Amino acid sequence: MEQTIVKNQTGTFISAANLLEHWQGHRRLTRRVIEAFPEKEFFEYSVAGMRPFANMVQELLAIAAPGLRQITGGETEQLNEHQEHQNSKAYLLALWDKATAEINQLWVQIPEEKFEETILAFGQYEGTIWSTILYFIDNEIHHRAQGFVYLRTLGIEPPYFWQR
Amino acid sequence: MEQTIVKNQTGTFISAANLLEHWQGHRRLTRRVIEAFPEKEFFEYSVAGMRPFANMVQELLAIAAPGLRQITGGETEQLNEHQEHQNSKAYLLALWDKATAEINQLWVQIPEEKFEETILAFGQYEGTIWSTILYFIDNEIHHRAQGFVYLRTLGIEPPYFWQR
Repeated sequence: MEQTIVKNQTGTFISAANLLEHWQGHRRLTRRVIEAFPEKEFFEYSVAGMRPFANMVQELLAIAAPGLRQITGGETEQLNEHQEHQNSKAYLLALWDKATAEINQLWVQIPEEKFEETILAFGQYEGTIWSTILYFIDNEIHHRAQGFVYLRTLGIEPPYFWQR
Repeated sequence: MEQTIVKNQTGTFISAANLLEHWQGHRRLTRRVIEAFPEKEFFEYSVAGMRPFANMVQELLAIAAPGLRQITGGETEQLNEHQEHQNSKAYLLALWDKATAEINQLWVQIPEEKFEETILAFGQYEGTIWSTILYFIDNEIHHRAQGFVYLRTLGIEPPYFWQR
């Protein structure tokens, strides 16, 4: 194996356009996990005193589009994890789809030099914009995986992890 | 809010150097999750017929450094998720640390223009190198989150997700 050492790794690992597609791929998978839950269990079922999956989805909705609104120059909003859900999966799925469109619309407003800037997300979490956005995605993967376990304990086969 | 549309998003979302640090941050968290398990439960305990966390860690070890070896021009290896673990957390933690060093060493051999190239990881998974590496990381977050649930069902508080 060639033992080349590449000294300068300040270049691109992933482009902004590809990162958006990567994120939306994860969001499509999370949407399928929401769909896989029976209505009642989505809002009520949990394991080991953790939150029902609906509450995790409320958190994800509270983060993605509102977080991007701040990044693109909007007001810094409070993290509101308790938005209305009307005890309806269809209602939360509609909010999910609304967020999908809003994320696409906001994303293209971010100039690429901005990803290295620092922000205080939701007025409380300091970091670069790239690390903040990766945190949004990683947090979604993390909670969705908990949803996978909930489904398995309910005897329901989750969607394939690799299907985006 | 300014409604600027940024047409060209082919530029950098995250640099190669920052992605390595991001990945190793996740690996440090996974290491803490391994440490949080009691020895016996690490190898034997599971929820809903899923694998014990030790087997998930074997999978993660089978992916990270071997996957990077292929990316940096080494042989394409078979995915070997059943490597020796000697029923010892300390043994797997030592393999984890060895992989940490190897990942750092291999990473700097990847020229940045290579991330857009396509590979057939482990001779079976086709994708760009950036998407393959993100898959390695996402898969780790996914299985580690299942480990979080295992810990909670055991009455053990997992490490903080945001602590890297």
